[in-house]
Amino acid sequence: MNEFSLINDYFLPVGSNREEVILGIGDDAACLRIPENTDLLVSTDTLLSNVHFHKNWNPFDIAWKSVMVNVSDIAAMGGTPFAVTLSLTLENADKSWLESFSKGLNVALKAYNIALIGGDTVCGPLSITLTIHGRVPKGKLILRSGGKEGDGVWTSGRLGAAALAVFLWENDKVDLGDRAFIEDKLKHPVPRVDLTSILQKFASSAIDISDGLSQDLAHLCQSAHLGAHLFEKDIPLEPLLSRYVKDPLSLALTGGDDYELLFTVPIEKENDFKEVLNKNGKTCYKIGFLTKEKELLMTHQDGIIKPLLKGGYLHFK
Amino acid sequence: MNEFSLINDYFLPVGSNREEVILGIGDDAACLRIPENTDLLVSTDTLLSNVHFHKNWNPFDIAWKSVMVNVSDIAAMGGTPFAVTLSLTLENADKSWLESFSKGLNVALKAYNIALIGGDTVCGPLSITLTIHGRVPKGKLILRSGGKEGDGVWTSGRLGAAALAVFLWENDKVDLGDRAFIEDKLKHPVPRVDLTSILQKFASSAIDISDGLSQDLAHLCQSAHLGAHLFEKDIPLEPLLSRYVKDPLSLALTGGDDYELLFTVPIEKENDFKEVLNKNGKTCYKIGFLTKEKELLMTHQDGIIKPLLKGGYLHFK
Repeated sequence: MNEFSLINDYFLPVGSNREEVILGIGDDAACLRIPENTDLLVSTDTLLSNVHFHKNWNPFDIAWKSVMVNVSDIAAMGGTPFAVTLSLTLENADKSWLESFSKGLNVALKAYNIALIGGDTVCGPLSITLTIHGRVPKGKLILRSGGKEGDGVWTSGRLGAAALAVFLWENDKVDLGDRAFIEDKLKHPVPRVDLTSILQKFASSAIDISDGLSQDLAHLCQSAHLGAHLFEKDIPLEPLLSRYVKDPLSLALTGGDDYELLFTVPIEKENDFKEVLNKNGKTCYKIGFLTKEKELLMTHQDGIIKPLLKGGYLHFK
Repeated sequence: MNEFSLINDYFLPVGSNREEVILGIGDDAACLRIPENTDLLVSTDTLLSNVHFHKNWNPFDIAWKSVMVNVSDIAAMGGTPFAVTLSLTLENADKSWLESFSKGLNVALKAYNIALIGGDTVCGPLSITLTIHGRVPKGKLILRSGGKEGDGVWTSGRLGAAALAVFLWENDKVDLGDRAFIEDKLKHPVPRVDLTSILQKFASSAIDISDGLSQDLAHLCQSAHLGAHLFEKDIPLEPLLSRYVKDPLSLALTGGDDYELLFTVPIEKENDFKEVLNKNGKTCYKIGFLTKEKELLMTHQDGIIKPLLKGGYLHFK
């Protein structure tokens, strides 16, 4: 099997058909036609064995996660994903690995109606790079930098399950049902594209929580030249954390990989925002507000205000 | 140095500014605005140590080549490159390596007026993936599949110098001047974007010669459901080949990495095409024509017709 038959067998039939794709896999480049009223979003993420996934993972799950970390970046901009390129480095062209990976890729792309428009396959240490393309109506882009002093700080969901899964990876005293639940959170993140149209209306800024709430909040605040004040009582911890961890808050603040969104909503839009969430059966959590002082603070359960715990995943230490 | 300071120091200042880029590095995704009369081209290529470059190469040269193999794909579609994302996997964040790489990237991107719009840096075995974005006027896209029976088959330049450089890599009997010349061809390919506007007018199909003339001609012909007949006397061999190799033709046919273009021109446009080439001081070489029979044949110097030598770089054997 050479790279050409590999592409034909495992990647040509994968993903959705999209009207934006004039020319997909099979030429020197793909060709996309972007509608007039639309801007294009582009983001890229590389996933490596034992950094972003465990080497024993099912290739189906590796493919799923590769797609979803990229989809999450588009969701954080208020966009809708529609096309990816895949660069796949493989130690060898193992058929059963490729079959499972290709299946996971197909299911993941179809779940979000995304086309696979091209890529590259080379022989080397396992590595997966996706570059994702999304669309956003002109003027509806949500930036990291758009928040204003006083805007509420929100998360799109509970935090810490993925970090808990990593923490408990080799601990065999975990209840089987709990393990299945948290490993599913780690392996099968569900990026919040479902909130895109709501966030386009209400969010003043957004970022996806990939490296941990503390670190990603710091990025959001840096971009806005502001600080933030959070309330411990409002941080939506994954309930299972307290069963297995002494300090659930720390894990939720510094653990990445949840792929929920962190965003801000101006106070004057807050009531309408809550109403729309309600109508759509969505739950988001207000955890604090943006401040003029460029500090990250937290009011703890005991009423004491402290600097927010720092930390999060760093690739080069 | 973490990945954030690494990006700030070595990648934020790199590349050209482009009007299409509404939002570049620093958010969850970049945002591009594609002009109304324009389609978007997307291509991606991964470069690995000891596959696409020798591990002893200067990082400047690695960056140059990473950009150019991607630019060449855009040239082969009749497009103009304008933006790239970079996914960089590094064993460690070595400052002198990064400085040289960043410099090479900057020079390469500015040489072709390309913006660096985003990327990802992770820790692992050295690997460089660029995804390049180009623009092409609507309706001017050149496909691999567009050739018709009788169209002339052309190359944009002489072939075999890069393959000769690889062949002679560890041979110390090579004349120093010759070595400098051929290594430059291998390390500093110059993709043929200079031909884009001419090819938009005259080419019925095109592909870039990255894996060797034989293999890439086979891809072109497969796409067009045609064959081709070449003439040995017309293949533009790099003249140095005959000094160092017994069978220069084989090396030129099966050696990759020249990043010249292979394209077809309908016979009725041939005279105008030659005239425009002349006026613009460009030299291209007609090497044969497309045939109805789906074979690749060559008339050799002695008049004998044989099947074209097969071969070229395969990533998985």
